[in-house]
Amino acid sequence: MQIRFILVAPRHPGNIGSTARAMKTMGLDDLWLVSPAQFPHPEATALASGADDLLGRARVVGTLAEALEGCRWVVGTSARLRTAFYWPVFTPREVAPRLLQAAVDGPVAVVFGTERTGLTNEEFERCNALIHIPANPAYESLNLSQAVQILAYELRVARDLPAPEARRLVPLAPAEELERLNTHLGQVLAAVEFTDRAGGGHLERRFARVFGRAELDQHEVNMFRGLLAAVMAKARRDPETPA
Amino acid sequence: MQIRFILVAPRHPGNIGSTARAMKTMGLDDLWLVSPAQFPHPEATALASGADDLLGRARVVGTLAEALEGCRWVVGTSARLRTAFYWPVFTPREVAPRLLQAAVDGPVAVVFGTERTGLTNEEFERCNALIHIPANPAYESLNLSQAVQILAYELRVARDLPAPEARRLVPLAPAEELERLNTHLGQVLAAVEFTDRAGGGHLERRFARVFGRAELDQHEVNMFRGLLAAVMAKARRDPETPA
Repeated sequence: MQIRFILVAPRHPGNIGSTARAMKTMGLDDLWLVSPAQFPHPEATALASGADDLLGRARVVGTLAEALEGCRWVVGTSARLRTAFYWPVFTPREVAPRLLQAAVDGPVAVVFGTERTGLTNEEFERCNALIHIPANPAYESLNLSQAVQILAYELRVARDLPAPEARRLVPLAPAEELERLNTHLGQVLAAVEFTDRAGGGHLERRFARVFGRAELDQHEVNMFRGLLAAVMAKARRDPETPA
Repeated sequence: MQIRFILVAPRHPGNIGSTARAMKTMGLDDLWLVSPAQFPHPEATALASGADDLLGRARVVGTLAEALEGCRWVVGTSARLRTAFYWPVFTPREVAPRLLQAAVDGPVAVVFGTERTGLTNEEFERCNALIHIPANPAYESLNLSQAVQILAYELRVARDLPAPEARRLVPLAPAEELERLNTHLGQVLAAVEFTDRAGGGHLERRFARVFGRAELDQHEVNMFRGLLAAVMAKARRDPETPA
C-alpha cells in the first residue's frame, strides 16, 4: 500500500522535518519533495526527531509531474475553500478511506502546496479531487506539517476501520498517462484549430480538469487516446491543417 | 462553551506557539500553561504566527490543580497506551463529542503532558478519562503541538455534527471540589487509621482514581463529603483517634 505525501516547494526545512515525524507517527513513510528551498538541512533533521530515516529516503524531484508518476489517484489539499471549484471536494475523513481503496491498485498521492500560498491552479489541475480541512473561518492558517498530521491521522484511523467491499474492475490510470492524454489533446486542439479567445492553454486546462475529475481508468484513457489519434490522422489529410 | 487546553510544563517555547496556532485554526482560544520552562518567548510568538492573541491571553499558573479550577470534565492525553489503566480510554474521535457535551455545563479541560515524558501518574489522577491518539506502534513519538492539532481538529469536526440530545440533570462537579473530596478522604483515612503497607499516599491515589473515573456530579460530591464529615465526627469522639 503506497500513499505518497508530496510537498510542493516547501520553503522551511523545519516543516519538512515535522512532516516526516507526523507521517511516521501514523505509519506512513513515502515522502516526496518537489523543489524544496533547502534540503537536506540540519533543521529538517532536528525536527524529524526519530523520523530521520524518512528524510533519508525522501525523493527529491524538480516537478510535480515527476512526483506523481505512477499515481492512480491524486488529491490536493486546499486551505481556503474557494467559492467555485472544478473538482469534487472531500473532508480529510471522507478522503481517507477513498485513498486506501485506490491504493490497492497502485500508488496514490496527497499533495500539499507551498507554505504561504498553497497549490497553484496549475498544480490543482493534476489532481483528481481536493481536500478541504475544516477550520475556523476567521483563521484558517494551518501550518503545513499540521495539515500533514491531520491527513496522516485520518489515514491511520481509516486503516483500522473495516475495508469497503467494492473494488474497481480496471485500475485508475496513473498520472503520467493522464498527462500524455492532455498533451495529446493539446496537439489535436491545435491541429483542428479549436481555440478560444483567452488562449495561453486556457482551454487545455479546462479539458484537463474534466479528465482529472472523471477519474479515468486505463481502458478509458486508451479509448480517448485512440479517438485523438484518429482525429489527428484525419486532420493531417486535410491540406489546410497547420503544420 | 469553554474548552481549556492545558500544557503541563512545556519545555520548548516553539511548541507553545505552535499549540496556539493549532488551536486557533480550529476555533479554540482557551490556552493554559502550567509552569512553562520559558514563556513569554520570541520563539513562541514567531511560531504562533497570527495566533499571538491566544498567547497574550494564555493563563500561566504554577500547578495543574490551579489550571483545572472550575473544570467539570478533565481528560488527559497519553502517547503510549500502557497495558493497564485505571481510567476509561477514548480515541480523539470518541472524546470530542463528550467534551462538547460536558462543556455545556461549564469549563472542561484537555491536558497535555510535558514533551518527553508526558503526564505523570499524579497528573493522570486529576483526570476523569484518558485520550489515546492512534499511532504507529513502532514510532508513537507525536510532537506536542501535533497532538494538540489532532484534538483541536476532532473538536472542530464534532462541533459541526448534530449535537446529542441527552443532557445531565446535575452538572459534573468541578475539579477543585473533587480535590477537596480527596483531601477530606485523606484526613478520614488517617483518622480511622486505614492505611496500607505501600504508604506515601498510595491508598489516597487509588481512591482518587475511582472518584475521577466515576465522574461525580455536585450532589454526589456533597453526599460523600457529608459521609466523610460524619465519619470524622465519630472518629473524634473516639479517645484513641490520633490527633
